[in-house]
Amino acid sequence: MSRQTPTKQVILDSALYLFHLKGYHATSIRDIANKAKVNPANIAYYFKNKQGLLEYCFISYLEKYIHVLESNITLLEDKGPQQCLIDLVEEVIQYQRENFLAARFIYGESALDTNLNREIHSTYFAKEKSLFQHILDEGIKARAFQSVPVPLYLLQLKGLLTASVLHPHYATEVLYVFPQEPYYSNLLTEEVKRFIELTLFHPEYNHLKAFNRTEVFTTV
Amino acid sequence: MSRQTPTKQVILDSALYLFHLKGYHATSIRDIANKAKVNPANIAYYFKNKQGLLEYCFISYLEKYIHVLESNITLLEDKGPQQCLIDLVEEVIQYQRENFLAARFIYGESALDTNLNREIHSTYFAKEKSLFQHILDEGIKARAFQSVPVPLYLLQLKGLLTASVLHPHYATEVLYVFPQEPYYSNLLTEEVKRFIELTLFHPEYNHLKAFNRTEVFTTV
Repeated sequence: MSRQTPTKQVILDSALYLFHLKGYHATSIRDIANKAKVNPANIAYYFKNKQGLLEYCFISYLEKYIHVLESNITLLEDKGPQQCLIDLVEEVIQYQRENFLAARFIYGESALDTNLNREIHSTYFAKEKSLFQHILDEGIKARAFQSVPVPLYLLQLKGLLTASVLHPHYATEVLYVFPQEPYYSNLLTEEVKRFIELTLFHPEYNHLKAFNRTEVFTTV
Repeated sequence: MSRQTPTKQVILDSALYLFHLKGYHATSIRDIANKAKVNPANIAYYFKNKQGLLEYCFISYLEKYIHVLESNITLLEDKGPQQCLIDLVEEVIQYQRENFLAARFIYGESALDTNLNREIHSTYFAKEKSLFQHILDEGIKARAFQSVPVPLYLLQLKGLLTASVLHPHYATEVLYVFPQEPYYSNLLTEEVKRFIELTLFHPEYNHLKAFNRTEVFTTV
């Protein structure tokens, strides 16, 4: 989001801060203008109205999120499915940490029954699913992954990846885990990677790769 | 919640339905009265105001939830940590399925920075954490569980347990998984159990138990 004008970015950050603090409906354009120290007319200029601002929050976060997924998946063949998925998960968690308020707000709102959510799900989240499904399918085909029920596995993976985003108070006030700090973020990343390795990776994959390589040599 | 009067229950169900459809702030007492086909004065009689209704939603769900946890944990010694945790997880998912709208609304709202949330976290969720921590600590001590970092593990477990509650549109519209239907609910429960077994259970626990039993016999 570096190509934003400073004012536009300040409005966006202020809006996200207030949305997460008070909720979307309890926040007015005037509140956002006060927090951002801009004239309400500025908000109208950039985003038309509060709904426009909401849509922009979702789309700017999700566009870049899909880009993170896609740029990882182009390396699938080079890296192999296990490394590709591990790298992807690391980058997703890092992206969420760097855009914590946006991630928290978007995943929280995405449970509501709104037109915006229906659109977001039929575009960005459908795309997200097809990208993850592609890695899983390829990994299962290559016997790098165990043959898990893909939709159920993706739902559990979503739960793991968004745990610290969707349970921020539970994390910080009950468990004393601070997902925005790099120390904890790294530990959480390691924990998600451990879950994936144990529940998805085929224990004999390295052996199989080695075996295939030997086979190639013997046929030469 | 069976001891409620029918009217009180109808108001509660209507409120939860509208909260999840439109969000809490966008729902008025008049909307709820219309949906429940009661006089707004009835809502004032039972809950005082919308905030009172919100608090009642949280507390009635969470009281019973903590009861589900506690009644399972009293059997910890008889069942052993592995069976106790597996049974607990099954009952938690079943309770969430039976109270899907409430679970969805409460976990969605619990990400906001409100006084109610601070209270809920310092009471119910702190209690929840201490109950789960008790099973984990006992299981690790008995070498039934691997020695995992407890707070991080609890956050991941929370993510797994609430995945279908917090990503309802993703589940139904993107993955075509319907967590409210018993068929899918059972599959999801099995998947969570598989995650727990693979990431937490000590692979040598049965062996250890058998070994200890033999030891008892040989010392007789």
